[in-house]
Amino acid sequence: MIKYTENPSFSTWDTLCKRPTPSLDDLEPMVLEVFDAVKQNGDEALKAYTKKFDGVALDSLLVSLREITDANNQISESLKKAIAIAQHNITAFHQAQEEKEVCVQTTEGVNCWQKSKPIEKVGLYIPGGTAPLFSTILMLAIPAKLAGCKEIVLCSPPDKEGKIHPAILYTANLCGIHTIVKVGGIQAIAAMSFGTTTVPQVYKLFGPGNQYVTVAKQIATRFGLAIDMPAGPSELLVLADETANPAFVASDLLSQAEHGADSQVVLVSTAKNCIEAVQKEVAAQVEALPRKDIAKKALAHARYVWFDALDIAMNFVNNYAPEHLILCTKDNHYCVENIANAGSVFVGNYSPESAGDYASGTNHTLPTNGFARQYSGVNLASFKKRISFQEISKEGLLRIGESIEVMAAAEGLEAHKNAVSIRLESLKTQR
Amino acid sequence: MIKYTENPSFSTWDTLCKRPTPSLDDLEPMVLEVFDAVKQNGDEALKAYTKKFDGVALDSLLVSLREITDANNQISESLKKAIAIAQHNITAFHQAQEEKEVCVQTTEGVNCWQKSKPIEKVGLYIPGGTAPLFSTILMLAIPAKLAGCKEIVLCSPPDKEGKIHPAILYTANLCGIHTIVKVGGIQAIAAMSFGTTTVPQVYKLFGPGNQYVTVAKQIATRFGLAIDMPAGPSELLVLADETANPAFVASDLLSQAEHGADSQVVLVSTAKNCIEAVQKEVAAQVEALPRKDIAKKALAHARYVWFDALDIAMNFVNNYAPEHLILCTKDNHYCVENIANAGSVFVGNYSPESAGDYASGTNHTLPTNGFARQYSGVNLASFKKRISFQEISKEGLLRIGESIEVMAAAEGLEAHKNAVSIRLESLKTQR
Repeated sequence: MIKYTENPSFSTWDTLCKRPTPSLDDLEPMVLEVFDAVKQNGDEALKAYTKKFDGVALDSLLVSLREITDANNQISESLKKAIAIAQHNITAFHQAQEEKEVCVQTTEGVNCWQKSKPIEKVGLYIPGGTAPLFSTILMLAIPAKLAGCKEIVLCSPPDKEGKIHPAILYTANLCGIHTIVKVGGIQAIAAMSFGTTTVPQVYKLFGPGNQYVTVAKQIATRFGLAIDMPAGPSELLVLADETANPAFVASDLLSQAEHGADSQVVLVSTAKNCIEAVQKEVAAQVEALPRKDIAKKALAHARYVWFDALDIAMNFVNNYAPEHLILCTKDNHYCVENIANAGSVFVGNYSPESAGDYASGTNHTLPTNGFARQYSGVNLASFKKRISFQEISKEGLLRIGESIEVMAAAEGLEAHKNAVSIRLESLKTQR
Repeated sequence: MIKYTENPSFSTWDTLCKRPTPSLDDLEPMVLEVFDAVKQNGDEALKAYTKKFDGVALDSLLVSLREITDANNQISESLKKAIAIAQHNITAFHQAQEEKEVCVQTTEGVNCWQKSKPIEKVGLYIPGGTAPLFSTILMLAIPAKLAGCKEIVLCSPPDKEGKIHPAILYTANLCGIHTIVKVGGIQAIAAMSFGTTTVPQVYKLFGPGNQYVTVAKQIATRFGLAIDMPAGPSELLVLADETANPAFVASDLLSQAEHGADSQVVLVSTAKNCIEAVQKEVAAQVEALPRKDIAKKALAHARYVWFDALDIAMNFVNNYAPEHLILCTKDNHYCVENIANAGSVFVGNYSPESAGDYASGTNHTLPTNGFARQYSGVNLASFKKRISFQEISKEGLLRIGESIEVMAAAEGLEAHKNAVSIRLESLKTQR
């Protein structure tokens, strides 16, 4: 069922590591049309599109306090307890990412420092649909709050009754998000890009979404917004050998496969018996899954790759740059030390991807599609920006002034030179 | 000459803070055409465009060792000394930005950590033209090297003799950059996006450029590359009061104005006599500048804004979100504490922007056009990405396993739940 390759030569790696990237250019005209309508007509446009796309006519776009209270009553105690544990762990891990101010006297009298400050206004997008992704709220709202973002807007599409799933409302409220807007899709991204009467304009957009949301986020960057990262289908690569538990590995591959038909599932192994055993387990376990049809579609383009040496396998892993990487080998330490490209890494037989998806503390909003080569997953710093500062004393300027003058003159920028010369002159007179 | 406003009401701030943003959409078809040609024909396309746009036919695109040696002989000792001082300070400030690994046991047996790793392949673009921006090489190559980027490519357009300015070659070599390619403009960005025989493909692009380069970098993001930040004309906002030296302030405003006719220059003050004195100094100093025509064009759309209170002035500054901010007030400490949005901040009468442009140690590649609200200037972290890790013990999974199961089930993802259940089951049997 799954494609199997032995010791593929380096020249084939790029092909083996390639993800299918559907062109979304076709969607652009439609996205631009919605952006334009939202820019022109604000809330009215949002209501019209919500009627058209979500099939519900709303009087108010904002979630009311009453709806929050109702949601609170609808969530089971066991789910509340589970969410509380996840919240605790995610908070602990992201709080520890707080950066200290960097202060350096680069030359006597020349003090330079760097400080992180919150991005004041951020927008979180949470998809609707059958599976309420309340876990994503934890992953975005907790670091946004910790970072100190002043304005946090959450948009999520309403169902046909005009409601948002209680688990989403409960979690958002738990995280201290008070601006929850019933709007989804392109129109939600447009609303946060331009601002409307109900939806505040933000500076950076976070969160997953379908192909329309993906294109809308790209378009939003043309209007000056930053986004968390480019989007793509979710991925898991497991690097396993004979020390791995084949049933566990199969369960991990399937947890990725159930996400969507376009999910990317890869097993890299140095042990042929491991691959064989995992194959059998996958075939057995998949049949029991409620989402087995989706999982089977994803498995149809999954890959099993065997290498005869761990170091070459690790090179392959780095070439692939997986969003999620599970390591179940006899030398996980070596693997961890040699990871160059990955979103989030799960070490050992008892660290399933699900743990990081929900409750261990790490973030689950991660770079896909090979973007782990140059992008970080969402972390505390995603909600901040760094500002540099300098304070130079008279003595400091006397020390570095001449080099500034020489360099500015060499670049043909006399006014740059003059800004130093005029100060140095005045210091000479003061002496 | 310069527009003057007193105590503008909040409703006018957005207009006052607006930068002219020329639409570059017209350039897109041309950029896409060049990208396509470079993708298809590689080095041959680069040579053809270099002949067409730079007016020179090159045999080899790579700068030779001989050219580096020649450049070394052409640079004066005083410039070498100046560059060495800048290099020392920039290295000191960026080295101090090294991040420690973040390690947290979020729950007993659940170990999470975060580690920064270098982006393996980066591309630096350095414009050509009359002013050789060798200072920008220091600002990009030093942190790239410190970060540990394995492959660093530098592209810069050749002159009509097929040469790159010796100051650029000298500085690049000094910083340990050995792949220097004589190619500029759109074709350089395309080459680093796709890779050619001569130019390696990279994962992230850095550096300034004209409007063609700006659009080409935007287009490169569609092909999976990351870029340092969106580009715009350079800006300076000076916040000054009666404690400022008007001649110094004028020299700073002019150093910004000489960059280009589209440079943004703003003086915000709580002292009318300061504004008047600066006005006189600007008028006097501008006449002595070699680039006075450019400076005058920039001054034509400069602004002087007076506020009667420092806290409101600071709010205005944060609303503007300047690339460069100079603070010359009697309460600089208050201002520093209350900065929410700025690229780089210069504190006090002896900290001209020129210092940060060249030699104090801070980076001069900074967010313009209000992007300081959500983007950092280039810093060590710009050349790295963060990877998260977790290692969960059997006991750890027993502690958080149930919450993962409950949450996964609530999101309708049974295979996610199963990846935990299968492990918990096996642990029960082991007992």
